[in-house]
Amino acid sequence: MWDKATERRRGNCQYANLSVDPMRRISILGSTGSIGSNTLKVVEHLGDTKVVAMAAGRNMKAFAGQIARFEPELVSCEDETCAAELERELAELNARVPRIALNSQGLIDVATHPAAETLVSATVGAVGFVPTLRAIEAGKRIALANKETLVIAGELMTAAAAASGSEILPVDSEHNAIHQCLRGESSSEVKRLILTASGGPFREKSKAQIAAATRAEALDHPNWKMGDKITIDSATLMNKGLEVIEARWLFGFDAGRISVIVHPQSVVHSMVEMVDGSIIAQMGVTDMKHAIQYALTYPSRQANCTVPLDLTTLKRLDFEEPDLDRFPCLALAYEALRTGGTMPAVLNASNEIAVQAFLDGKVRLDEIAALNREVMKDHDPIAADSLEAILNADEWARERAIMKLSKTAAA
Amino acid sequence: MWDKATERRRGNCQYANLSVDPMRRISILGSTGSIGSNTLKVVEHLGDTKVVAMAAGRNMKAFAGQIARFEPELVSCEDETCAAELERELAELNARVPRIALNSQGLIDVATHPAAETLVSATVGAVGFVPTLRAIEAGKRIALANKETLVIAGELMTAAAAASGSEILPVDSEHNAIHQCLRGESSSEVKRLILTASGGPFREKSKAQIAAATRAEALDHPNWKMGDKITIDSATLMNKGLEVIEARWLFGFDAGRISVIVHPQSVVHSMVEMVDGSIIAQMGVTDMKHAIQYALTYPSRQANCTVPLDLTTLKRLDFEEPDLDRFPCLALAYEALRTGGTMPAVLNASNEIAVQAFLDGKVRLDEIAALNREVMKDHDPIAADSLEAILNADEWARERAIMKLSKTAAA
Repeated sequence: MWDKATERRRGNCQYANLSVDPMRRISILGSTGSIGSNTLKVVEHLGDTKVVAMAAGRNMKAFAGQIARFEPELVSCEDETCAAELERELAELNARVPRIALNSQGLIDVATHPAAETLVSATVGAVGFVPTLRAIEAGKRIALANKETLVIAGELMTAAAAASGSEILPVDSEHNAIHQCLRGESSSEVKRLILTASGGPFREKSKAQIAAATRAEALDHPNWKMGDKITIDSATLMNKGLEVIEARWLFGFDAGRISVIVHPQSVVHSMVEMVDGSIIAQMGVTDMKHAIQYALTYPSRQANCTVPLDLTTLKRLDFEEPDLDRFPCLALAYEALRTGGTMPAVLNASNEIAVQAFLDGKVRLDEIAALNREVMKDHDPIAADSLEAILNADEWARERAIMKLSKTAAA
Repeated sequence: MWDKATERRRGNCQYANLSVDPMRRISILGSTGSIGSNTLKVVEHLGDTKVVAMAAGRNMKAFAGQIARFEPELVSCEDETCAAELERELAELNARVPRIALNSQGLIDVATHPAAETLVSATVGAVGFVPTLRAIEAGKRIALANKETLVIAGELMTAAAAASGSEILPVDSEHNAIHQCLRGESSSEVKRLILTASGGPFREKSKAQIAAATRAEALDHPNWKMGDKITIDSATLMNKGLEVIEARWLFGFDAGRISVIVHPQSVVHSMVEMVDGSIIAQMGVTDMKHAIQYALTYPSRQANCTVPLDLTTLKRLDFEEPDLDRFPCLALAYEALRTGGTMPAVLNASNEIAVQAFLDGKVRLDEIAALNREVMKDHDPIAADSLEAILNADEWARERAIMKLSKTAAA
């Protein structure tokens, strides 16, 4: 059925034929990752959505399976070696070989595929940044799961979105929840956003216990199954800090109007407090498919393939203040946001290095915050108004962090 | 400042002068009651709202104080005796005497005062029904606190509102919460409404303990300070049952799409589950001023005079299934709603008699449900499509309930 929502959804698709085709067309960056594969499950469930282009990094076996199943017109992978491997895998599956693009230009081609009205941006780290920016400039709807892009270049991206009319729909459950809470509300009547944090595996642990945490303990998240990097960020609450920065750009509120509350059950995905004291909350099961589907079907909602939330089985929801003493990364993120300019990009880059060092057994969990603090202290922030400024800051911070790590190791 | 919201608000006011006056004008039925006096506190807080007409029952001393303070153009009270008393009280306060109207016509004059664009309908019981209907027919916005009107004549009232373009904004915290949760949502995408119930003072008591409950125990509500009738209804969960019926008419969902969940803290005022499994909840402090102000200022929100909700101080929220065995009144309300026609009016009337009998020490708390069940059993429902049919059913049920009570007393 053709309706207003469909019409709006198709507004940016130059191939849209308003009289015939109600299919939703999407492209995916990072299809073999956690968000990417959940996106494909949602696509399968919805039935009215076609994947026209997708990109994956190195897991060509999984990628070939996805291509055989979803038959995109265009795919992209890292290099010639990957492409050759992909062709072999596709041959084994007796699958049609689509057009294969390569490396960073390939990512851009997938992100800006003219037939797709929505890009699901689900790569991890900085690699998805430029392609996502290009898709924004092309006026596509962005289902954004790559939080680094907004953390490091929120100003640039939201300015580009405002210029092109691109809608950015967050796939992070917290921001997706806030997007839902803000439906029908005026942003001038919002008092503050309240991001919920599970508190991670160390919520009830002492500073000493956190310092002595093993890799396995830090990777054991109580509620969400996610990648390693984000799971460690959840353990340090840096993930929540990055989400505060992300929220600033997605919704346009400054640091003073974004709060964090610890809610161990992760059932209330986030909340908005209005000027009249009313708090609107969005709740649901802890399943990324919900937010992904919301971003694809917005402004309409469709039946989901996830199990419904039952509050009477759950019985209780708890809330507490975050402890900035035990979780200093959260305070650092607020500090970076208040400082502004290139400081958030520096924190993000330093943190990536620090987390990898923890995963590699080179630093303790509590040393992540210490390293980030030192790198931030050494940085003279400038305006984050160009890609160059941001990428330079990112590179500087990585080098600085690595240098500091090697000094520590040498000492 | 003149804005779209103001314009919309003033749409039904025949005296509106679009170029000058941004004041909100309201009339109040039941100004000396709990909702009425809270409405006046909200009016005082807002500053941009003028009370043009108000009606009260018998408390002329309090009414005179309100008139002296708010200077309405028109007031109404029960009869000549009250009017004389009111004039004496006003003279004592050196207050200007407004036009005084009397009895049921006086209520209608207040409810339909041409200068008011909103009627706050806050009388208890059937007395407010006809005046509220007339205000609806006149196209006024209704801030509705009198739940009986919708319970007994929901079909009639919502049809009248649809015909005149009158907006009914619920002041009951649960329905007000649902109204907030539905902002920006499409009703075709709603799976169900979830009304929260505190569970009342007997939530954790056995059937035997409920049967033996004293008047004082039943009036000791854990969260809300309300009138006696509604407090007893909260103790039996009949209040929640009446709210289910009210919700059916306010939001247009049938009984199968309205659930009740027990939530002892009364912080989540109610919720809406969408077809995609997302649950939107509205939370706030337990203060009626919030819902009153929302109904007056909608669609805009303004800073409130209530203290903000702090979830971290509260620490936890609990949820459980309602127990229909210990609280059969809730099941009776669902039954009345499913039967339809005049049955809800009969249940409401029978329940008023039964609650009064309990307050008078004539029946036990658990006998309220028994009496209601018997009266419902004796009733042959007809369509509730005229005032006459509804008022006849109401009268029949009261007589039937009184007859059954006197038989029991005689036995």
